[in-house]
Amino acid sequence: MELNDEYFMRIALNEAEDAYTEGEIPVGAVVVLDDKVIAKGHNLTETLHDVTAHAEMMAITGAANSLGAKYLQDCTLYVTLEPCLMCAGAIAHAQVKTLVFGASDPKRGYSVYTDGKFPSKAEVRKGVLEDECAELLRKFFAERRK
Amino acid sequence: MELNDEYFMRIALNEAEDAYTEGEIPVGAVVVLDDKVIAKGHNLTETLHDVTAHAEMMAITGAANSLGAKYLQDCTLYVTLEPCLMCAGAIAHAQVKTLVFGASDPKRGYSVYTDGKFPSKAEVRKGVLEDECAELLRKFFAERRK
Repeated sequence: MELNDEYFMRIALNEAEDAYTEGEIPVGAVVVLDDKVIAKGHNLTETLHDVTAHAEMMAITGAANSLGAKYLQDCTLYVTLEPCLMCAGAIAHAQVKTLVFGASDPKRGYSVYTDGKFPSKAEVRKGVLEDECAELLRKFFAERRK
Repeated sequence: MELNDEYFMRIALNEAEDAYTEGEIPVGAVVVLDDKVIAKGHNLTETLHDVTAHAEMMAITGAANSLGAKYLQDCTLYVTLEPCLMCAGAIAHAQVKTLVFGASDPKRGYSVYTDGKFPSKAEVRKGVLEDECAELLRKFFAERRK
């Protein structure tokens, strides 16, 4: 199997599905270095009662622990949903090299606040497995509204 | 002693001094509810090898733990330096009612990215003990450059 963006986004999507199962807004993230996943995370804001426990924050902290270093200059972060402002800031601080996200977030995504510009030199690719990433979120919120 | 902005900012400044002593960029924060400090925090990025361990993040997580609730709608967050984008996002997520900061950060403050607009409905007051907050940072960086 080719180790491309879709391959790693599918692992992030598996994380999002774990979040869904736990009653969390289903967002998942993985950090990849040299074609290896070095950290995974999913949204845990309800479980931890902590608004900062987004998937990206868990994955960044996990990757830093895994590497024993706080900067992720050679890493790619995959996340199923466009990062919010907090996570975009964290990705910038961590000096992540490449950001790949699935679904866009026209309400709370960083783009809303920054005229679409990512707040670091990270290369940004978007729309990878977009429909699947968005569908899981739609399903979650539809069930909540029942 | 009057429990005003300067009073609480001085407690945040004490936290920043603790950071300074520990070799951390000296930024401190406190969360106040009904004139009581419910959480304090200072920058721990070096100690924890974690770029997300900013003073505000520590204080927000601490306040949520202290209250057993993740939203801080009735709280005021005092921080010695203008929050970065990540922390501004976290303050918005936590629904902090009022943000009070000391020194401005013309390089990495949220204002740089948002045209000065804070990304939530929080009331923002700035410049409280500005000189003292800024001086501690200047002293830290001057010593690093020696």
